[in-house]
Amino acid sequence: MSSGVAVKRPNLGSSQPVEKVDWKKRKAEIKEAKKQRKEAKLIKQLEKQKQQEAAEKAEAELSQNKKGRAYTVSLALPGSILDNAQSPELRTYLAGQIARACVVFSVDEIVVFDERGEDVKSVEGEFSGVGKRGHGCIQLARILQYLECPQYLRKAFFPKHQDLQYAGIFFFFFLSLVGLLNPLDSPHHMRIDEESDYREGVVVDRPTKQNKGSFVDCGMRKEIQIDKQLQPGLRVTVRLSKTQNPEGKVYKGVVVAPHVPRTEGGYYWGYSVRLASCLSAVFTESPFKEGYDLTIGTSERGSNADQALLTPFKHLLVVFGGLQGLEASLDADQKLDVTDPSVLFDLYLNTCPGQGSRTIRTEEAILISMAVLRPKITAAVSSSSASLES
Amino acid sequence: MSSGVAVKRPNLGSSQPVEKVDWKKRKAEIKEAKKQRKEAKLIKQLEKQKQQEAAEKAEAELSQNKKGRAYTVSLALPGSILDNAQSPELRTYLAGQIARACVVFSVDEIVVFDERGEDVKSVEGEFSGVGKRGHGCIQLARILQYLECPQYLRKAFFPKHQDLQYAGIFFFFFLSLVGLLNPLDSPHHMRIDEESDYREGVVVDRPTKQNKGSFVDCGMRKEIQIDKQLQPGLRVTVRLSKTQNPEGKVYKGVVVAPHVPRTEGGYYWGYSVRLASCLSAVFTESPFKEGYDLTIGTSERGSNADQALLTPFKHLLVVFGGLQGLEASLDADQKLDVTDPSVLFDLYLNTCPGQGSRTIRTEEAILISMAVLRPKITAAVSSSSASLES
Ligand SMILES: C[S@@+](CC[C@H](N)C(=O)[O-])C[C@H]1O[C@@H](n2cnc3c(N)ncnc32)[C@H](O)[C@@H]1O
Ligand SMILES: C[S@@+](CC[C@H](N)C(=O)[O-])C[C@H]1O[C@@H](n2cnc3c(N)ncnc32)[C@H](O)[C@@H]1O
Repeated sequence: MSSGVAVKRPNLGSSQPVEKVDWKKRKAEIKEAKKQRKEAKLIKQLEKQKQQEAAEKAEAELSQNKKGRAYTVSLALPGSILDNAQSPELRTYLAGQIARACVVFSVDEIVVFDERGEDVKSVEGEFSGVGKRGHGCIQLARILQYLECPQYLRKAFFPKHQDLQYAGIFFFFFLSLVGLLNPLDSPHHMRIDEESDYREGVVVDRPTKQNKGSFVDCGMRKEIQIDKQLQPGLRVTVRLSKTQNPEGKVYKGVVVAPHVPRTEGGYYWGYSVRLASCLSAVFTESPFKEGYDLTIGTSERGSNADQALLTPFKHLLVVFGGLQGLEASLDADQKLDVTDPSVLFDLYLNTCPGQGSRTIRTEEAILISMAVLRPKITAAVSSSSASLES
Repeated sequence: MSSGVAVKRPNLGSSQPVEKVDWKKRKAEIKEAKKQRKEAKLIKQLEKQKQQEAAEKAEAELSQNKKGRAYTVSLALPGSILDNAQSPELRTYLAGQIARACVVFSVDEIVVFDERGEDVKSVEGEFSGVGKRGHGCIQLARILQYLECPQYLRKAFFPKHQDLQYAGIFFFFFLSLVGLLNPLDSPHHMRIDEESDYREGVVVDRPTKQNKGSFVDCGMRKEIQIDKQLQPGLRVTVRLSKTQNPEGKVYKGVVVAPHVPRTEGGYYWGYSVRLASCLSAVFTESPFKEGYDLTIGTSERGSNADQALLTPFKHLLVVFGGLQGLEASLDADQKLDVTDPSVLFDLYLNTCPGQGSRTIRTEEAILISMAVLRPKITAAVSSSSASLES
């Protein structure tokens, strides 16, 4: 069915004087010319492809840089929820549920506040175990920290001190409980051979030559020599150099601020844990110098979240109550004079209108609320990405 | 400041012949007339108010009827998730989490399917305990049933048989575990003095006069005499009569189908539990004669749920996978010839785009997915409420 299809033929220079044509030679010439054109075309195609690939790569790198996430999400909850769990095993399990929920929704900071107004301010010092009730805040904070810590660093930061027995429970009992738990599977929990731009590590205690940086254990087959001399035992975030000498005894890298994997790489990089002695301290002791610029309280008495729109923000805070809700946390707070929690927040939301159970537990409310807020967060930050970049 | 304000005065019949006026009498007459008019007005107002109240009541009753929910939501998940829990305590706790998630989102039917293609078809018969692994489906179904059963009926339907010891675990051990769990707080779990149109009950074993109905224990201070003679031990749904004789020895009520509290009252009334021997049986053995008219599969490989719209439906089915996802359930199903789960469903949705953890557990995915689907379900059924009523 070639009728009507014009087959293009090569112009063979018919303007040249008519000579006796050596048809054999001619044929060979034509063939050769064809071949060359074909090859030229191929080379051109390949070059084009290469250019395209390079352009794509550049674009990808650019968008990788753009991918850096400027905003943060913080979540606050009362440590008392642990006191209501009925066994050390379930207490630990509950803390694990909170940790996992926060990782699933890329929460950057967890604030554990005391809703009874007791004064607990620090997670430093000895680990007090999970056997005793009434230490909900410290216990929750400790387990959250433990789970956030990449496995290969746990022996460095959570040693098995026998003298922890004073807390009424052996640390190894806690470890046996944690062993039952589900891993966070956070992107910063690297496996030994996993390739990555960044890694968490601990500065090892080994002498280094002057003008040379310290060695850091990042859970890889070799240690990383960083650009600075730092105190052994410090936890650091390391950016690995793009080019490594495969024969070298160590890898090369530089220490960066812990937020860099997020702000420059766009990775979710785990959460930090903060203790607050009361509900108001959740707001006032923000680690961000500008504070939180969007705050959301959650309650079945809040307004319908389906209709809520989030305004663009840099540092979002979402607050959950305990068994008695945020009203109870408010009552116990001597610094707060109001009785209606809704006035504390920019938004006070019911994230599960028409709930089938009379009450939703805090650990359930976290998953439900964050699932409902996730698309709203995405919308808020993408509408503001131009204006809020800094 | 009465200037400009025209005070209306009664027209006292000035067309009558002018007589000598007994002003005292006149004054009294006026006063009396005024009083009567005032009273008439009050009576009129009261009548109007009564009428209005009656209208409102009628309207409320009408909308109460309208409130009846015609649609159902079913949720399916593999029983194998229980096998992955690491202790009887955590296994029970996990089942409790599933039950609570389903109640929070008013799920009407839970289908527990076997993703290894073993043949388990019935939850009848002896309770096999939660101590042993490898019976995930039966164990999950049993615990779900136990939790759904109102507390006051549990002794009737879950007796403490010592001979349950054969399952390797005492039933009271299971009870001690369940005791640790969080109650469902479902609206059909009534307290003793709670007023309600409907109640769940058990037909008691007591002789009744001929032509008189059986007695039912509904967890109230008195038994309810129903309209029928039924077999003792049967679980029934009872609609309490509107008017009761407070002096009577029993309450009066009629037996209704279990769906009536939902379809006529609009109440969430707990879930039923069904076992399916494989994934395909989830679809084919639907208790609704029309089957499910909207099916949703869930997976991190599904399409973005934020953009999804649900079509109007009568019987929605939402399916979750186990540790290995729905692909694994599909592989084990000999009746299903496909390898891509998405073709099984009307929608195959990722309900947590951009998840921060590499994997989301089934019990987490249920809360997250139902939270995301809830407003979409509401939208779908409200847009269809006119066309789908039957
Ligand atoms: C057990 S509930 C508190 C119940 C308490 N009786 C009350 O009335 O607030 C614990 C927490 O879960 C969250 N929560 C429960 N139901 C919620 C809903 N429908 N919407 C948003 N948050 C909810 C709130 O943060 C609440 O403080
Ligand atoms: C542990 S996950 C299965 C993970 C498995 N590796 C896979 O790739 O599917 C268990 C179940 O949770 C649900 N799930 C997990 N992540 C989800 C997501 N992002 N969206 C919707 N459902 C999800 C699915 O039903 C899945 O089968």
